[in-house]
Amino acid sequence: MLKNDRLLKALRCEPVDRTPIWIMRQAGRYLPEYRETRKKAGDFMALCKNPELACEVTLQPLARFDLDAAILFSDILTIPDAMGLGLSFTEGEGPRFSKPIRTPADIAQLGVPDPNEDLRYVMDAVKTIKRALHHKVPLIGFSGSPWTLATYMIEGGSSKQFGLIKAMLYQSPAQLHQLLLKLAQAVTLYLQAQIDAGVDVVQIFDTWGGILSHDAYQAFSLAYMQQIVMALKKYAPQVPIILFTKNGGLWLESIADSGCAAVGVDWSISLAEARARVGHRVALQGNLDPSVLHADTDVIEQEVSKILGAYAGTPGHIFNLGHGITPDIHPEKVKFLVDAVHRLSEQ
Amino acid sequence: MLKNDRLLKALRCEPVDRTPIWIMRQAGRYLPEYRETRKKAGDFMALCKNPELACEVTLQPLARFDLDAAILFSDILTIPDAMGLGLSFTEGEGPRFSKPIRTPADIAQLGVPDPNEDLRYVMDAVKTIKRALHHKVPLIGFSGSPWTLATYMIEGGSSKQFGLIKAMLYQSPAQLHQLLLKLAQAVTLYLQAQIDAGVDVVQIFDTWGGILSHDAYQAFSLAYMQQIVMALKKYAPQVPIILFTKNGGLWLESIADSGCAAVGVDWSISLAEARARVGHRVALQGNLDPSVLHADTDVIEQEVSKILGAYAGTPGHIFNLGHGITPDIHPEKVKFLVDAVHRLSEQ
Repeated sequence: MLKNDRLLKALRCEPVDRTPIWIMRQAGRYLPEYRETRKKAGDFMALCKNPELACEVTLQPLARFDLDAAILFSDILTIPDAMGLGLSFTEGEGPRFSKPIRTPADIAQLGVPDPNEDLRYVMDAVKTIKRALHHKVPLIGFSGSPWTLATYMIEGGSSKQFGLIKAMLYQSPAQLHQLLLKLAQAVTLYLQAQIDAGVDVVQIFDTWGGILSHDAYQAFSLAYMQQIVMALKKYAPQVPIILFTKNGGLWLESIADSGCAAVGVDWSISLAEARARVGHRVALQGNLDPSVLHADTDVIEQEVSKILGAYAGTPGHIFNLGHGITPDIHPEKVKFLVDAVHRLSEQ
Repeated sequence: MLKNDRLLKALRCEPVDRTPIWIMRQAGRYLPEYRETRKKAGDFMALCKNPELACEVTLQPLARFDLDAAILFSDILTIPDAMGLGLSFTEGEGPRFSKPIRTPADIAQLGVPDPNEDLRYVMDAVKTIKRALHHKVPLIGFSGSPWTLATYMIEGGSSKQFGLIKAMLYQSPAQLHQLLLKLAQAVTLYLQAQIDAGVDVVQIFDTWGGILSHDAYQAFSLAYMQQIVMALKKYAPQVPIILFTKNGGLWLESIADSGCAAVGVDWSISLAEARARVGHRVALQGNLDPSVLHADTDVIEQEVSKILGAYAGTPGHIFNLGHGITPDIHPEKVKFLVDAVHRLSEQ
């Protein structure tokens, strides 16, 4: 049904004619047309909440580059916003919650949002994008992981030390588990609704799992992602799930054991080593350092070659950056990257 | 000659009566007496540059806690400061260089400081501290790694994305190697001078090695630390060297192969796994998450037990945090930690 199903094939570890590529944050500030649309919308959350404009920016990178997937334009923090924490973004400062979690009562009072009511704008965006895509490429839906959502909800925004949530983790683990359980339920319902609305693949972004100790990662981040994976696999076995824990390279085996279809990998580990460690039970997604896109095209080509070479051509590789693309990258570099991945993997 | 030589024994992987412990940033803002002395000195760099006051703060944690080592009070950025980059600290903002590296000419013009002239205040501090210690415990000297120094010199201070140095790494690697080579020479001379002045052990802090790709880590960080290790082992074979790369858990084998005596490990990997991976060629130092010190003493005891249990009592363990202690920790918690490590490891 999809005209380009390379991503889905790679996620099933089936052979493909060339390695599929998409780019985390491919619809973003490095594109002048994105900055235009964002200006039109007012602010970042207004853009997320307007399905027509969210669709417009989702499609912008596909008009420029030969990407193998679209990813829903949205934010990882829509769920806590729908829970009433009051999300806003200040240019250059990142997300802020006006009502962060401060007490056990705050956790007890949190409701699990109804995605088709409280997050209806996301489902409307998914439907609008699906129509506009005309089955050209698959659409990826996503959510933040429960742990990653909890870090922002408790710290009140971005953090360097994560002092508040880590204090809770060690001092009041039962309270934190209560919050994470609620978030796991919310993420499950949210991703089920995105699947109902039409997404073909889902990715869970565990941006901050990597700050945890090995034991705490298993108990406070991976366990809840696994609950979500289990529930989604029952609900929609045909929809592959990608788990991405930034700085999770030490824990690849346990992430691969979660039941996900693919594991996202950052640049701290070679794909050869990653593949050797997880065997062939999952596909692997990654893993170019976004900073390489600062360099000239010959350097980009060489780094792409290295990654494709490390993967050594076995099925089950989705090319991506190891983290989101930064606003200071020139779009021409992205065009070169996408074409280089296709050209070099075809050979 | 040292009254307490547990640290030195553990660094040689010899049996000890109880596991030695010291704490990264043990002389620091969490101690009220440190804040007093700092106020007296004026600012942070004035404190570093005053040997009497640097000695005073070095000894403060030893007066309170039964620590098995002192560590020279200084900063990792003294070398670039001595190179003329103009280091300053603003409360809550971290280090700033008034003259960061901007052009190839900036690199070519950098001189290698003479540690006994340009960094004489550090050597004076070492001598003052050694006298004051009366051979009670060993004194640890230290330096930032060439890569870590270069990140600050090029970014001009702390960074989130490290866009400038990574752009140079991929676009102009030869230039960056020129800088790193100069820094490796400077660090070697600096640590040799610290050894001459009396330090018993040295640690190289590679705070930012973990932001690199696996290949880039080997070429741009580890290779230069290895040069330093080789030179120091020739110069002073009796002085053990500890290498600590924050977020370096994926690369433990190659760090252990550098010739160092011990590898510092953060909390993202269990010491059992770390030991299994590096065998017995090095000692291991770590690896409590400093956030555990927010919790009550029963939680601290349990986490200390876990780490000692993971290490399983074989020789060659130095207890430490996986990163510097933060200013918000109560000194009583540190006292409990130090005593718990001794008590539980004795059993």
